[in-house]
Amino acid sequence: MSAATTPPRRIVIVGGVAAGMSAAARARRLDEDAEIIVLERGEHVSFANCGLPYYVGGEIQDEAALLVQTPAKLRDALDLDVRVRHDVIALDPARRTVAVRGPQGEKQLRYDALILAPGAAAVRPPLPGLDSPRVSTLRTVEDAVRLRARIDAQASRPARRAVVLGAGFIGLEAAEALSRQGLEVDLVELAPHVLPPLEAEMAAPVTTELKRLGISVHAGVAAQAVEQHEGHDTLVLADGRRIEADLILLSVGVRPDTAVFETAGVACERGAILVDEHGRTNVPHVYAAGDAVLSADAVTGLRRPVALAGPANRAGRGIADHILRPASARPLPAPVGTAILRVGEITAALTGANADALRASGIHTDTLHLHPTQHAGYFPGATQMALVVHIRRGDGLLLGAQAVGREGVDKRIDVLATAIRAGLTAADLIDLDLAYSPVYGSAKDPVNLVGMVGANVTDGTLALWYAQDWERLRGETLVLDVRSAAEYAAGHLPGALHIPHTELRGRLDEVRAAAAGRPVRVLCGSGVRSHIAHRLLTQSGFDSASLSGGMLTARAVLGDEVLVA
Amino acid sequence: MSAATTPPRRIVIVGGVAAGMSAAARARRLDEDAEIIVLERGEHVSFANCGLPYYVGGEIQDEAALLVQTPAKLRDALDLDVRVRHDVIALDPARRTVAVRGPQGEKQLRYDALILAPGAAAVRPPLPGLDSPRVSTLRTVEDAVRLRARIDAQASRPARRAVVLGAGFIGLEAAEALSRQGLEVDLVELAPHVLPPLEAEMAAPVTTELKRLGISVHAGVAAQAVEQHEGHDTLVLADGRRIEADLILLSVGVRPDTAVFETAGVACERGAILVDEHGRTNVPHVYAAGDAVLSADAVTGLRRPVALAGPANRAGRGIADHILRPASARPLPAPVGTAILRVGEITAALTGANADALRASGIHTDTLHLHPTQHAGYFPGATQMALVVHIRRGDGLLLGAQAVGREGVDKRIDVLATAIRAGLTAADLIDLDLAYSPVYGSAKDPVNLVGMVGANVTDGTLALWYAQDWERLRGETLVLDVRSAAEYAAGHLPGALHIPHTELRGRLDEVRAAAAGRPVRVLCGSGVRSHIAHRLLTQSGFDSASLSGGMLTARAVLGDEVLVA
Repeated sequence: MSAATTPPRRIVIVGGVAAGMSAAARARRLDEDAEIIVLERGEHVSFANCGLPYYVGGEIQDEAALLVQTPAKLRDALDLDVRVRHDVIALDPARRTVAVRGPQGEKQLRYDALILAPGAAAVRPPLPGLDSPRVSTLRTVEDAVRLRARIDAQASRPARRAVVLGAGFIGLEAAEALSRQGLEVDLVELAPHVLPPLEAEMAAPVTTELKRLGISVHAGVAAQAVEQHEGHDTLVLADGRRIEADLILLSVGVRPDTAVFETAGVACERGAILVDEHGRTNVPHVYAAGDAVLSADAVTGLRRPVALAGPANRAGRGIADHILRPASARPLPAPVGTAILRVGEITAALTGANADALRASGIHTDTLHLHPTQHAGYFPGATQMALVVHIRRGDGLLLGAQAVGREGVDKRIDVLATAIRAGLTAADLIDLDLAYSPVYGSAKDPVNLVGMVGANVTDGTLALWYAQDWERLRGETLVLDVRSAAEYAAGHLPGALHIPHTELRGRLDEVRAAAAGRPVRVLCGSGVRSHIAHRLLTQSGFDSASLSGGMLTARAVLGDEVLVA
Repeated sequence: MSAATTPPRRIVIVGGVAAGMSAAARARRLDEDAEIIVLERGEHVSFANCGLPYYVGGEIQDEAALLVQTPAKLRDALDLDVRVRHDVIALDPARRTVAVRGPQGEKQLRYDALILAPGAAAVRPPLPGLDSPRVSTLRTVEDAVRLRARIDAQASRPARRAVVLGAGFIGLEAAEALSRQGLEVDLVELAPHVLPPLEAEMAAPVTTELKRLGISVHAGVAAQAVEQHEGHDTLVLADGRRIEADLILLSVGVRPDTAVFETAGVACERGAILVDEHGRTNVPHVYAAGDAVLSADAVTGLRRPVALAGPANRAGRGIADHILRPASARPLPAPVGTAILRVGEITAALTGANADALRASGIHTDTLHLHPTQHAGYFPGATQMALVVHIRRGDGLLLGAQAVGREGVDKRIDVLATAIRAGLTAADLIDLDLAYSPVYGSAKDPVNLVGMVGANVTDGTLALWYAQDWERLRGETLVLDVRSAAEYAAGHLPGALHIPHTELRGRLDEVRAAAAGRPVRVLCGSGVRSHIAHRLLTQSGFDSASLSGGMLTARAVLGDEVLVA
């Protein structure tokens, strides 16, 4: 119990954006008397980090819209002492002081509690020629303003070309923004596909949409050098390709901005500050939050940096609680890591762990692929989304989910993020009463369907096979295609036996003959009809399994090239 | 343990729409050998109940879209014996038979398990003249086809007039559909406001939107009689008003269609079948699901009918599980009762219990009103939604939520429905990692904000007052308006002292003088600034509270008439 502790008189906060400013505002609401000083290295506090690509792209017209707060407004409303262009250059934990360099010179500042929210800086890989003046990053309002000014200045020039290095969330937002401004855009990604946290089969429709927007996608290739020429640069790729660019945007990741604090004894791992469940570092009275800390993932328990605004805001707030009300402060939640992206007319989102993280953590999983429509199929405008969900083998605990589609993606990922946070299983999803009218959903919502499929897998009612295993399985098994004749004729896996699911009951002898003792691997369009067929087959004595996600997933995994008509 | 039980050989299902057909399909997937007979009184099975108003309104063009399945397709895919135009006229539990009247006459049908999913019929109140041929209901495909044919036949006639009796979900959908078809529509509701399950302050914007669509709303008034004239009817209201109508649509509720079964000894309450957590009635081997059953509400525990497609579908499925796998079947969930409605350009949705139900169940609650934007305010197109959330006093357990707005309403209600089902508290909502990019949400999502406000109320950081209490409080307290001068000048509560929240810290003496020992009741636009002011006041020794939902809620509760400029 800390009830007898005197509240700190001076709270010093390093960094005035998401985590830092949330901590400051909450601290004031809890303690009218504390002195609260926010030290921000940049020009602006509390700016709209996540809006920068949209300003570059022109959807957000006015720079002022990015500046959510100003020091003056924060002083008037919350009596905060916000000092921009103040850089913390040293920390002395023994004396409880930080050394600050500001426009008026250097000074020492004493603290009773110190919150480190310095954020992260763009990684600059050791690439020859990256010092070109045409190379920029997109982390601050200044970056965005500079980039937009350069675009506007060149607006009348034809054939302006941009290269975006790195196809993560911000890289993709930036690529679309530049494309929207009329530039020819090449997107280069070292990983095998864009948005590396997505499963490959989910990244495929994102790549398709990028190409539809006119963006050239180069995945699975390293950048080797930037050649600086008169008037433009040339990016050289490891495979020898050369891309000319009037502008190169670097978006290959961030590294925590923590050197000053690590030097002073704040424990870090890979440059990121280690904190406990209340945001405390190893140094007494020193807390940390935001892009500069490492957190233990809620699903896998593995430590990872989570550079997301939502968790940063909430951690800042929670740290203020712990400083001012230590006895009642709730622990900060482990991050689930939900993220979302609009790409052209589609949305890609994910929550929880992906297949790589689950493999790394040694958790045994089942993976479900579904393609439900965002609302009732009989209501105009229904479109399919692709859903992937990982559940724990044995009990069906929800571990992670991803969705890509035109509409309703954000809703389903938010529901699944809530379910993961609440520790629900697939079977629990069956029971969710989600808002249904044909305009908004289906009587069996996509999330309910995930629950039904997942519960069937967990209890053995449904056995799945995966398109990734097709090459290996095609010889060892009978692949049975139960789609309609028209669907089969339009393209099917070579060697697949075709019997429509409506005829299967009367044609089991054909299956038995063709299988010749081998297991049967059933497939249909998206997995609904093959599930019905699987149930029939398994109750008729076959070793059977249903293709997860059907041909929709198989085509994303294998490509259309494998199909025969 | 029922592991030794032989699975039933013949499952008879009464009613072939949501609950019944879900039970049939699941039963087949679990048991290839069972005989599964579905008896449907109407012409169609598995039709799109919830699509009927949209067919009437012309958004769904084709009648065929409403017919999701046909007996022939169900026979081919699932070997179901589906008999339409078969009415069950008696049940003999001792012999395990039902008497069925079909096109070929009457016969007895033996069952091993019987599932009652007869649905509910439209209530016809004892209103003189209601037998007019111009009065119709909207429960079946036949109803919808008849109504649409009548509208189409009269399409060239000017000044066609419709009255919709009952402003529940279906009444409102029907009213909009008729209005969309060019009819003048009057909507009559006995309850004080449209959509009676909504709180009054949430119904207000729905009424506004209905009026914007050109629909005349008459709430809080009873229909007294239908006068039948040559060529039209006149609906007479209890207050003497008379409304001429070429068409009257009756939508005042439904009653379970259970007389046959109650006569046979199936226990009912108010006509609805009582079931246990596996859907079992009091009669051995007889189950029931859907609109014809009473369920104990998940939040209040009070028994109520839940005429919703989602729970019906899932209950049918769960009953099939219990019949065929009694040892492992999960209990059916108590309904949370989530519902949603599009009205013109806005969405209204609710989940869990409302204030009336909570009062009736004796649960002590705190109620939160918020007006967050659906996505980041700095991104183009941000619009506010109204959110009301009820939490349990003391621990903040989530009990119910309602939302009305232009965008993002369905998502927040689904997240809150999930949270209610999972037994989360307001504080737990703070920790939800919801998908944020400025296109889709905010770093602090509306649901996170509900959590922050709710946790503040639960732990006493925030005290709320309510617009409903204004008349009583205005004399006993100092009402303090902390909005900007421009907002105050545009309209404020009479007698309110005005000090902008940015000046409050320096003007506490003025507050002290004006309060003269009375409590201070603060307000602002939506409750954000008044929360900051409340924290300042309460730490400065005032008895203070912040207006829940601010002036946005106050105007919905009190009307604009009370404002002075």
